[in-house]
Amino acid sequence: MAKQPGLTPQSEDFSAWYNELVYKADLVDLSPVRGSFVIRPYGWSLWENIQRELDAMFKATGHENLQFPMLIPMSYFQREAQHVEGFSPELAVVTHAGGSELEEPLAIRPTSETIIGELYAKWVQSYRDLPLLYNQWCNVMRWEMRTRPFLRTTEFYWQEGHTAHATEEEARAETRQMLDVYATFAEEFAALPVIRGEKTEGERFAGAVQTLTIEAMMRDGRALQSGTSHYLGTNFAKAFDITFNDVNNEQAYAHTTSWGLSTRMIGAIIMSHGDDLGLVLPPKIAPHQVVIVPIARSSDEDAKARVGSEVARVAEALREAGVRVKVDDRDSISPGWKFNEWERKGVPLRVEIGPKDLAAGTALVKDRLADDKSSVPLAGVVPYLIEALPAFHDRLFERARAFREERTREVHSYDELVEQVERGFAIATHCGDPASEAAIQEATKATVRCIPLDGLPAGDSRCVHTGRASGYPVKVVFARAY
Amino acid sequence: MAKQPGLTPQSEDFSAWYNELVYKADLVDLSPVRGSFVIRPYGWSLWENIQRELDAMFKATGHENLQFPMLIPMSYFQREAQHVEGFSPELAVVTHAGGSELEEPLAIRPTSETIIGELYAKWVQSYRDLPLLYNQWCNVMRWEMRTRPFLRTTEFYWQEGHTAHATEEEARAETRQMLDVYATFAEEFAALPVIRGEKTEGERFAGAVQTLTIEAMMRDGRALQSGTSHYLGTNFAKAFDITFNDVNNEQAYAHTTSWGLSTRMIGAIIMSHGDDLGLVLPPKIAPHQVVIVPIARSSDEDAKARVGSEVARVAEALREAGVRVKVDDRDSISPGWKFNEWERKGVPLRVEIGPKDLAAGTALVKDRLADDKSSVPLAGVVPYLIEALPAFHDRLFERARAFREERTREVHSYDELVEQVERGFAIATHCGDPASEAAIQEATKATVRCIPLDGLPAGDSRCVHTGRASGYPVKVVFARAY
Repeated sequence: MAKQPGLTPQSEDFSAWYNELVYKADLVDLSPVRGSFVIRPYGWSLWENIQRELDAMFKATGHENLQFPMLIPMSYFQREAQHVEGFSPELAVVTHAGGSELEEPLAIRPTSETIIGELYAKWVQSYRDLPLLYNQWCNVMRWEMRTRPFLRTTEFYWQEGHTAHATEEEARAETRQMLDVYATFAEEFAALPVIRGEKTEGERFAGAVQTLTIEAMMRDGRALQSGTSHYLGTNFAKAFDITFNDVNNEQAYAHTTSWGLSTRMIGAIIMSHGDDLGLVLPPKIAPHQVVIVPIARSSDEDAKARVGSEVARVAEALREAGVRVKVDDRDSISPGWKFNEWERKGVPLRVEIGPKDLAAGTALVKDRLADDKSSVPLAGVVPYLIEALPAFHDRLFERARAFREERTREVHSYDELVEQVERGFAIATHCGDPASEAAIQEATKATVRCIPLDGLPAGDSRCVHTGRASGYPVKVVFARAY
Repeated sequence: MAKQPGLTPQSEDFSAWYNELVYKADLVDLSPVRGSFVIRPYGWSLWENIQRELDAMFKATGHENLQFPMLIPMSYFQREAQHVEGFSPELAVVTHAGGSELEEPLAIRPTSETIIGELYAKWVQSYRDLPLLYNQWCNVMRWEMRTRPFLRTTEFYWQEGHTAHATEEEARAETRQMLDVYATFAEEFAALPVIRGEKTEGERFAGAVQTLTIEAMMRDGRALQSGTSHYLGTNFAKAFDITFNDVNNEQAYAHTTSWGLSTRMIGAIIMSHGDDLGLVLPPKIAPHQVVIVPIARSSDEDAKARVGSEVARVAEALREAGVRVKVDDRDSISPGWKFNEWERKGVPLRVEIGPKDLAAGTALVKDRLADDKSSVPLAGVVPYLIEALPAFHDRLFERARAFREERTREVHSYDELVEQVERGFAIATHCGDPASEAAIQEATKATVRCIPLDGLPAGDSRCVHTGRASGYPVKVVFARAY
């Protein structure tokens, strides 16, 4: 594969590749505020496309959007013991406003369970008021020490769903339903094969009874948690007094859930699909699905006009078919430069049309995953491209799946585990002891990413670390993670 | 007109009517943070519809969305003298984060000219990099002392467009173009007739050379500024060093603009169209354009099933035609209660279908602006409703326009001005002296809302306050304002 000028190859330094690419692909820029980044139009457009698809899935499963205030009284965090322990160290705090000191400091939300709990307590009186099925798209802030664009930033963008239910069964079903929504989105829109599973106790959301997760594999073999869904039991209902009269007219606590997917998903897409030429974007959420580069010297006005008119015809036909198409007719930039730029930016399909193509009645189509260009009759180029997009998605997904399979191995000893997490996912029996999990992490930097929902039965196999019986019905996934 | 239970009539106390309705129509709820409100799903859906339409108009005029960090170093505000004076008193300030005190306090953005200026300086090197045409949808914070839902809140939601241009002419054209976008949105989507005009010096955005505004009249005769577009000259370019090499390879400062429309627009819609029954929502942005209430006792299962099936057929046909339709089939609530609720929530069209209607082959249609119900053949009810929506928009706009005309008067003396601003807009000659403007405001609570772009020529008429010559080519609009 050709090399992208000025981009470190993945094999040389994956981390450098990522850190360079997010800037060189115009996704982000540095900001004057430590750990916060400017999301540039190309990056924000990707997020808007993610939002649009996810939002439709949330609405199709009966959820409505609303918006809670961004500032939360500090005392709210104290009400749920695990929650305060988990989030206090990361809070950004407003102490002054309107020229004077506030009586009570206000935190910028790191997540909104607390303020939402306060209102849900007011909104829920009877079982008839349940369930509450709400979501908000917003910015949140967690003061992280080491930050990286999309993966870990002080301010980030996400959606947080918050629901309240009359019964545990219903709340657990919701928790699972939203995990499935995330998995469906990841696979069918982002072309990311994911493992659905449950987090171990140590990796649970602060205040949750159960945390479900989708885990994807990056091209350096590490895992990235790409969305989580939490069953919160009655923990927040007790802390915020979300009670209701049940069908028997008896007071009961509501069972709540929360679930979130953030701009980390963009990091997952970059690191799962990208290569030494740059991004490779899944067509369903790519800002531009097709880029057309007219090839004509600006000195030959006549050829330029003929090419421009054909390019406009193809672009218009694609737009009418709902394809997001970009015509790159910048005059001052050479075709070769444009090819590099759009490859770096991961546009799935590129079309080149020049005077020679016009004469031959063809266009050249370059697929971001292929090495060669295809010559396609101009008369049929529109349906060709329309069909090529879902096929591109399928190949991208299949490539990521094959890569993950190749880098996933069932291990039967601690030595095998140590070796396997160097390159990918290790499927292993674990006793479930948090001390053992911590010791493994200390030694290998790998953690239990999840207890897969459809994992290999552990049977009477023994823990690869302690030799004790399995702590879970299935073998777990160990990996280093972002 | 019937009275809505528990809602103060407008004529009795307009302010109480507003303050009650925003809660009773489920638009907002109180939050534990002073001056910040929870926007409930019905209110947020209205905002989402506003966003969708405006965003399409921004993109159609060549703008792209991006996202800048919410926190801005305090020192940035100092760089533009008028800007710091205008915004410093309202800032909310983060002084602590991640458990320690920050070296430099960070303000939550009240508007983003400063941080955007910093980045534009980096992005613009040559005239080829211009124009920059960007917008962001976000939350902002201004620590206001007296707050009211949608009209004035500490946190609010808006879009802020920020553009940079090579020439003054281009930047002024952009400023005007975006004012026209706002006016078109207001009139064609929100059914709000607006006056386009320029703000006087005293009412300009802090740091602007020119502020253009659209002003709408509320049903108490007061004005509401519903969107503003600012030509910032080179003020921010100088403060943040946004320079470029022009076509002659000489360094020049960029000319910048900014323009914003916020959730205040929801307040404008409530107060321009609402009546003693509650909201009246413009169909193009109403969360539900049509509500269907099945009329059948739950004891008669057979009738209920027949009605339900017809209701489902009509709803599905409307949905397929792109109509936002809500079926209110709640069992435990009476039809009369539902009628009150949907009238309070301002749904443009209500359809009632019961067993008698089925037998007669008709449905009852109630239009939110009409007193009577119409009987419409069931076979034709779908096209009837589809045609009724744009007609409803037109009538709503026309009603608001007629109301404004009736409450607008050209005045020729100070006494007439004093009297006229009690009930509406006064069109008057003014000398332009800020001291006179302040004195008028002190005495009458009315300000110059704008110098209309298509106002009445002032000719040699004299200022109604000072008797001096007109300070503007046209007569200005005086009104009390929100």
